[in-house]
Amino acid sequence: MLCPIITLLSDFGLKDSYVAEMKAAILSLSREVQIIDISHQVEKFDVRTGAFLLACAAPYSPEDTIHVAVVDPGVGTVRPPIIIQTLNACYVGPDNGVLALAVRNDGDPRSVHKINDRKLMLPNVSSTFHGRDVFAPAAARLANGRRPAEFGPKISKIDAPTFARVIQKQGTLVGEVIHIDDFGNIITNFRPKDIRLVKTEPVFKARIKNTELTLKLCKTYAEVSQHEPLALMGSHSFLEISMNQGNAAESLKTKEGDKIAIRLT
Amino acid sequence: MLCPIITLLSDFGLKDSYVAEMKAAILSLSREVQIIDISHQVEKFDVRTGAFLLACAAPYSPEDTIHVAVVDPGVGTVRPPIIIQTLNACYVGPDNGVLALAVRNDGDPRSVHKINDRKLMLPNVSSTFHGRDVFAPAAARLANGRRPAEFGPKISKIDAPTFARVIQKQGTLVGEVIHIDDFGNIITNFRPKDIRLVKTEPVFKARIKNTELTLKLCKTYAEVSQHEPLALMGSHSFLEISMNQGNAAESLKTKEGDKIAIRLT
Amino acid sequence: MLCPIITLLSDFGLKDSYVAEMKAAILSLSREVQIIDISHQVEKFDVRTGAFLLACAAPYSPEDTIHVAVVDPGVGTVRPPIIIQTLNACYVGPDNGVLALAVRNDGDPRSVHKINDRKLMLPNVSSTFHGRDVFAPAAARLANGRRPAEFGPKISKIDAPTFARVIQKQGTLVGEVIHIDDFGNIITNFRPKDIRLVKTEPVFKARIKNTELTLKLCKTYAEVSQHEPLALMGSHSFLEISMNQGNAAESLKTKEGDKIAIRLT
Repeated sequence: MLCPIITLLSDFGLKDSYVAEMKAAILSLSREVQIIDISHQVEKFDVRTGAFLLACAAPYSPEDTIHVAVVDPGVGTVRPPIIIQTLNACYVGPDNGVLALAVRNDGDPRSVHKINDRKLMLPNVSSTFHGRDVFAPAAARLANGRRPAEFGPKISKIDAPTFARVIQKQGTLVGEVIHIDDFGNIITNFRPKDIRLVKTEPVFKARIKNTELTLKLCKTYAEVSQHEPLALMGSHSFLEISMNQGNAAESLKTKEGDKIAIRLT
Repeated sequence: MLCPIITLLSDFGLKDSYVAEMKAAILSLSREVQIIDISHQVEKFDVRTGAFLLACAAPYSPEDTIHVAVVDPGVGTVRPPIIIQTLNACYVGPDNGVLALAVRNDGDPRSVHKINDRKLMLPNVSSTFHGRDVFAPAAARLANGRRPAEFGPKISKIDAPTFARVIQKQGTLVGEVIHIDDFGNIITNFRPKDIRLVKTEPVFKARIKNTELTLKLCKTYAEVSQHEPLALMGSHSFLEISMNQGNAAESLKTKEGDKIAIRLT
Repeated sequence: MLCPIITLLSDFGLKDSYVAEMKAAILSLSREVQIIDISHQVEKFDVRTGAFLLACAAPYSPEDTIHVAVVDPGVGTVRPPIIIQTLNACYVGPDNGVLALAVRNDGDPRSVHKINDRKLMLPNVSSTFHGRDVFAPAAARLANGRRPAEFGPKISKIDAPTFARVIQKQGTLVGEVIHIDDFGNIITNFRPKDIRLVKTEPVFKARIKNTELTLKLCKTYAEVSQHEPLALMGSHSFLEISMNQGNAAESLKTKEGDKIAIRLT
């Protein structure tokens, strides 16, 4: 039998022992799993970025992967811990939207269950570290073959973050910066179908805040000179504004949430 | 047979190849182990924080885990490399206190041995990187079934860091900040039994350096408004001073080693 | 059979999901591998540092390790993706020099092949993320037993970075800083044979930029007082200028590429 895969995503950082405690809790219950860290350097409490990164990594994971995502500003409060089963994978985390984007990409969830059976958690459950005491043991037990329905009652609706939509307005398409990656690539919510509306492709005009840009739609960074900005469809099929061997977000003073307008003609 | 677990803790950081060299050395000798990183971002030479993080993670690790901790300002000098066997686990590292707190939590050590058999180290032992050349191979050989006594002579006493004790003084309990985590939570050395002495619980008065605080003893961060300070028993049963969705240590300008006084009435 | 080892090195950082996507792609094709991260915090586009770190870690890896190194400013352009087989290991990455130093340490390559068989890549190959779409699947398939010749045609010459050589000049040996590690150790390109030319060993005079230093050649950091500079042969047999429990590079305002001159008498 193939060893199960568990992925972990959190805003815990790598300085403390929190991530290790989650892994130790998992391996105490299920020794033969492979653990992949998606990221633990999500900005503290930034549920949207957590949701985005999980949605980026999930499609490349083996079938039946168990994804655990813990960006959880409301830990210990009413938001329930949940397990979502989709066609491809199983998602474990707080019901605050951090799982929702990846789940939506998998199609409709097959089931959503609360985790409330105390016997399936660690013996002592702290009120501030459900990653270790609730979510890690749930993932380990799912890896061991437990079914989501054993953890608690079915629920019908999950919390979903509202990601900005691209809108058309006075001859422009208006979208938003959804992520700045570590290279400074500006990842927007424009999809290939949006960009096909832009008649003047492969060169088009865009405005980020008050900066007007003329961008070439490229395949590779090296199609423009070093430190020149460019646009391309990134590796997750979102339009990115990048800079050849440079940091676009710093140069253009851009941050997550900034609006981007692209002229249609 | 279950695959052995080895944990690694160091101040090596993640930019260089040092941690990978330790892992490569382990897997060269013992292929079927699972390695958990506790942290490699301990402040350089900060033996106390290393000891604290190891003591946090060890209780959640499977039985028979082999813990390797290398925060070692005296590498290559007289401080001996040691192996400590406790009831639950095996600890490998320099005899400078980095192992002592986790060992003490496990009860009395069953044995302590020096590592001085050159045949059980890598063929070339550098004088500056015992993590790779001495400690990693020791952990791998323990995982392969070697007994601590094969590595060198028994020793009777280990170095222990002196962690501050809570003292009672003129109607106050005086403790200390033992760790600031990546969220900015201020982790103190107050234990549940100390806090039970505080008559005015759940609201009590505290002073960190010169700042007077009125704190509510909460179960969850969300019991106070956003960016309000609070107190709670953290996930390792130390009193923490935190801020709901904020960074308490930055707001209160607090650092490790600062004194905290709690009024008893 | 022993499970195969795959190492990963990149400039992707740990904030984003890129490293996880590579791991997920590997484990989707080859479940029973052990993955070691060498470093993902190579300075963006710094091929030389990537080459240096890979060359540090490779000699400690088990035989038949598959090393994947992706520092790739020219991703998607003419530089071909390659597989280099040496006596000890297999190297996968772009042909831009990042593999060359580790390969040279292994002796002459036994073969070099382009990766151009589309069937051995992921179904959709982005033009900006060959780490996930080309190199990760190649490593996984090599772990599954595919031979390098199955991936594409043999090529005869690989790109090699030019690392500075030590030269003798007017009674001095002139070398260069090749790496500053996370401790601030200044790692130079002087080898033991160079230092044996220095008559005045174990105390010698050196100049870094305009700073004159009198350094003692030590075995351990603790041979000088705290915060005193010293020299020693580091754990990869390069001369290092260090500071006992301090940061030598910061104190001496030194950076990678700086020249160092050592007086011969």
